[in-house]
Amino acid sequence: MRESDRGPVIAVVGSGAVGSYYGGRLAQHGHEVHFLLRSDYEVVRERGWVFHSCAGDFSLAPEAVRVYNDARSMPTVDLVVVALKATSNDQFKPLIRPLLKPSTLILTLQNGLGNEERLAELFGAERILGGLAFVCLNRGEPGVVHHLDYGLVRVGDFTEGRMDRARRIVTMMAESGIECDVLPSLKYGRWEKLVWNVPFSGLGAALDLATDRLVASEDGLAMVRDLLRELLTAARAAGANLPDSVAEANIQRTLTMGSYRSSMQIDRQCGRPMEVEAILGEPVRAAQRLGVNVPLMGALYRMLRIVNLANFRKD
Amino acid sequence: MRESDRGPVIAVVGSGAVGSYYGGRLAQHGHEVHFLLRSDYEVVRERGWVFHSCAGDFSLAPEAVRVYNDARSMPTVDLVVVALKATSNDQFKPLIRPLLKPSTLILTLQNGLGNEERLAELFGAERILGGLAFVCLNRGEPGVVHHLDYGLVRVGDFTEGRMDRARRIVTMMAESGIECDVLPSLKYGRWEKLVWNVPFSGLGAALDLATDRLVASEDGLAMVRDLLRELLTAARAAGANLPDSVAEANIQRTLTMGSYRSSMQIDRQCGRPMEVEAILGEPVRAAQRLGVNVPLMGALYRMLRIVNLANFRKD
Repeated sequence: MRESDRGPVIAVVGSGAVGSYYGGRLAQHGHEVHFLLRSDYEVVRERGWVFHSCAGDFSLAPEAVRVYNDARSMPTVDLVVVALKATSNDQFKPLIRPLLKPSTLILTLQNGLGNEERLAELFGAERILGGLAFVCLNRGEPGVVHHLDYGLVRVGDFTEGRMDRARRIVTMMAESGIECDVLPSLKYGRWEKLVWNVPFSGLGAALDLATDRLVASEDGLAMVRDLLRELLTAARAAGANLPDSVAEANIQRTLTMGSYRSSMQIDRQCGRPMEVEAILGEPVRAAQRLGVNVPLMGALYRMLRIVNLANFRKD
Repeated sequence: MRESDRGPVIAVVGSGAVGSYYGGRLAQHGHEVHFLLRSDYEVVRERGWVFHSCAGDFSLAPEAVRVYNDARSMPTVDLVVVALKATSNDQFKPLIRPLLKPSTLILTLQNGLGNEERLAELFGAERILGGLAFVCLNRGEPGVVHHLDYGLVRVGDFTEGRMDRARRIVTMMAESGIECDVLPSLKYGRWEKLVWNVPFSGLGAALDLATDRLVASEDGLAMVRDLLRELLTAARAAGANLPDSVAEANIQRTLTMGSYRSSMQIDRQCGRPMEVEAILGEPVRAAQRLGVNVPLMGALYRMLRIVNLANFRKD
């Protein structure tokens, strides 16, 4: 990420709620940000973006916003922020390749496991970073994003142990009003986030139950705990040494957060593809490679695939 | 079942669609049938019953129908037909005990495993028979039942090997226009019916997918087959020697039957309790007692319990 006098030139690939909000904050604070859009392209080009944010409303005027519907018409940049849904990872090559210079860094803000690995395979491990977004964002009508709660981004380097590049990105984001910090271990952070996502997104989406329904019964709590026992064993085998206490901490947090539908459950209800591979498939495959037995996670993974395939064919 | 000159006196306990339809056919053909009702009692007492049936419409006039809302006000009978939802099995004692003479037979038309065993514990094994109803019935407005398709009842004796009593009941039913036959082994019949119910009712209700969605993908078919492999192993250990071919026969039948929501899935969607113990819990416990490993059925059972508990608390 070699920076011009005006700071790094940035591209956001996948400008749903996450990409447009974080990219929007950077643009709001004077950074040159190029957004690759699909569905909202026409509307945003004509009317710009409006962000209703719990951290302060803002908008980007159409004449100030750089939007594209084809990566091949975009410039090369210093930093690519990847905010595609993980179900579109087969599009990495055509969407990202045109944006790269030798020095370009790639920061993926996507959910789950396996995204950095896939980007590293395609574009080289040395330029990859990952960010975990803890944020509640919804898309409104085209060109409108609702930022409802939270907002923390934790940035880590795919090269474990290296922190200088993550620190520079975090500094830039913090200066743009984004709450963020540096993850000492991206691997640890990725597995830690799965402690919430595997039971509450995964099981919740498979059974179509909001989080409060899952923890409302002893049976539900017992299955959440059994899933987390498998997950923690797999995480440790993978080198992410999570303590037992993260399981109960996530359960306690969920017990107090009221009725919440994960984005995976919402995807299911709207007939959109769920991020099954990133949230369940990759952890199950990692466990299997490491010789860790994860029968409940395996069954849940299979069920979510069935739901996904059933929903696809409905269209 | 000692019969008066006019044939056996019959009580139907649990007069939902199944109980009222089969009891209604017997009453239509001159049998003395006493119906115990809950929700539709007032309406049926005032207006009688109307049956829209693919086997011929009929109705029971209010002055011709014997309905009760309290078992204690009913006479003792020769035959009790139990058509309660299996989720109400804790009501067996107060609902059935008042109807019994020493010679009374009890025929349960309920779904799943464990109903005869529970009745035998309470009232003596020597008077218990079981019937499998292969029928598509829906309740319409109060007092109206829709008989859409099928209708076969297979009757077997809880005393394995004994067939005389089942034959007498089948003769009576056949004379009343009910398609029926004698099951040589009730145990075999019960496990055989689970070959459809465990994957298609159970998995379909847990994931909230109609049958055609489950068999629409290779993933769905593979999980159905894995569930059935476990079920067939358990059935054989329990003494029901089902051939492998019943698995594929049920899958093929489901592939051609179009989109079908099982009563379990409909219960789930309507927020009513599902028959989880009869369809999954009892087979899983039977397998465990017999030392048969059924991990997928076990996981599915746990998930259905969670959905049931989540739905209950919604009310």
